[in-house]
Amino acid sequence: MIRFFEKDPYAPIQYTYEVSKVLYHKRSRFQDIMVFENPHFGRVLVLDGVVQITQRDEFFYHEMLTHVVMNSHPDPKNVIVIGGGDGGTVREVLKHKSVEKVYFIEIDEEVINVSKTYFPRVASGVSDKRVEIKCMDGAEFVKNRKSDIDLVIVDSTDIIGFAKSLFTRKFFHSIRNCLTPDGMYVSLSESLHFHKDIVIDVQKTLRTVFPVVDLYTAPLATYAGNWWTFSVGSKRFDPREIRSKQTVRCRYYSDEIHANAFLPLPMYRKLMSGKLDW
Amino acid sequence: MIRFFEKDPYAPIQYTYEVSKVLYHKRSRFQDIMVFENPHFGRVLVLDGVVQITQRDEFFYHEMLTHVVMNSHPDPKNVIVIGGGDGGTVREVLKHKSVEKVYFIEIDEEVINVSKTYFPRVASGVSDKRVEIKCMDGAEFVKNRKSDIDLVIVDSTDIIGFAKSLFTRKFFHSIRNCLTPDGMYVSLSESLHFHKDIVIDVQKTLRTVFPVVDLYTAPLATYAGNWWTFSVGSKRFDPREIRSKQTVRCRYYSDEIHANAFLPLPMYRKLMSGKLDW
Repeated sequence: MIRFFEKDPYAPIQYTYEVSKVLYHKRSRFQDIMVFENPHFGRVLVLDGVVQITQRDEFFYHEMLTHVVMNSHPDPKNVIVIGGGDGGTVREVLKHKSVEKVYFIEIDEEVINVSKTYFPRVASGVSDKRVEIKCMDGAEFVKNRKSDIDLVIVDSTDIIGFAKSLFTRKFFHSIRNCLTPDGMYVSLSESLHFHKDIVIDVQKTLRTVFPVVDLYTAPLATYAGNWWTFSVGSKRFDPREIRSKQTVRCRYYSDEIHANAFLPLPMYRKLMSGKLDW
Repeated sequence: MIRFFEKDPYAPIQYTYEVSKVLYHKRSRFQDIMVFENPHFGRVLVLDGVVQITQRDEFFYHEMLTHVVMNSHPDPKNVIVIGGGDGGTVREVLKHKSVEKVYFIEIDEEVINVSKTYFPRVASGVSDKRVEIKCMDGAEFVKNRKSDIDLVIVDSTDIIGFAKSLFTRKFFHSIRNCLTPDGMYVSLSESLHFHKDIVIDVQKTLRTVFPVVDLYTAPLATYAGNWWTFSVGSKRFDPREIRSKQTVRCRYYSDEIHANAFLPLPMYRKLMSGKLDW
């Protein structure tokens, strides 16, 4: 049997997958890109040795990254998606009829091309006419934008690695400046099982920039630690509340999942004061 | 580096762990028992090649298996724990002051002995005078008991394997018969990511025996699929409600976690009608 051993130096459990067939494997200007076929998950996209999405379960991650802030904002029109070259987040954003414009900022054009070829259903929204693709550093893109953006969604690789410029105070400031007074930001922020200190760190940095900061989680089978967190920074709106009048068809996300996904407040306070002892 | 490769034929992702030292490795009459040391998790207990508990994160599982039904029952006095030879579930049960008697039924005495030696904090409750240990098959023990039991907690190895006698209709009938009219039952029931059909199957079998059947989940890093389910069968009480007046000190479980752990009802109905499409 051919096996793929995930190469995540920061995870205390290493995941291995059966490989039926390697469909693509090349180095782009930025990273090593591989697509393989697995009997359970279907096609699997790997960047620099770490699984990014699988055909079978990508919707858990993409729905949870996207719809919590999309539904918490009353009327999102202009959205920036940074990273997420596979297109899954863009696909979810476009489900909202209010959306007029999506700036899709992916540094590595090859990831978009590979996804169009091997994950056509995930990349289905990429050629929508509301989408403007820019292959550049997300931090550069947001630096000098005017304040007309409703939501910024960061769909990067792991924080520890080349995406770390997307988790600095400077970057969060740029995001705040490009958001309208109702604007919100969301990003993945690692596992509450394995990377609690990183989660706290992201939350604390966000607090120096945004008046409303919060944290929610989702169970993701293919990301190490699985109990995955998402960090929200908001100028005004509490992300726990649903304000959107639109209903979006989802496979996992729902109003109830939205509510339950946020850490109970006593637990959140314990986390932030360093009293969750694991 | 020495590595432990988990041998779980039913999981589409195999987990591997760094091994600092193997502390114990022998075959008992029933299974292969190993304890090794890992830099992140501390000591790890392995039965027949599958990780059962780790020193670092066992409390997530033991708290969630135990306190949901313990707190949903207004006054649990007599409790049966089947399996759970490490003693973690017994330790959690004993935190409730109402408890007068715990029947601790573990088929493999060696697991209890190994846990006393290598996991003394997990096994701390095993020698409590309220605990009566019986090394025998749990299905045999419940078969002819009188109806004086408030709660039955099944803490077995994976359903697929030698614990399968603990998931039959016949076994559930024996449990119902040994419970008081207020009695409840809980058991692990695999991963909602990887073993959805098994989860549905356990729920359906329970429904033929108990008038109230429900499902809750917890994020567990060391069990394949991680989004782990627990199945409840109850004669009368809705397990979503907390009735106990006692407060028990926990590291993860809380009243809010109790409420959020249950599947939202629309999602539960979709699951049971086979409409969750993953």
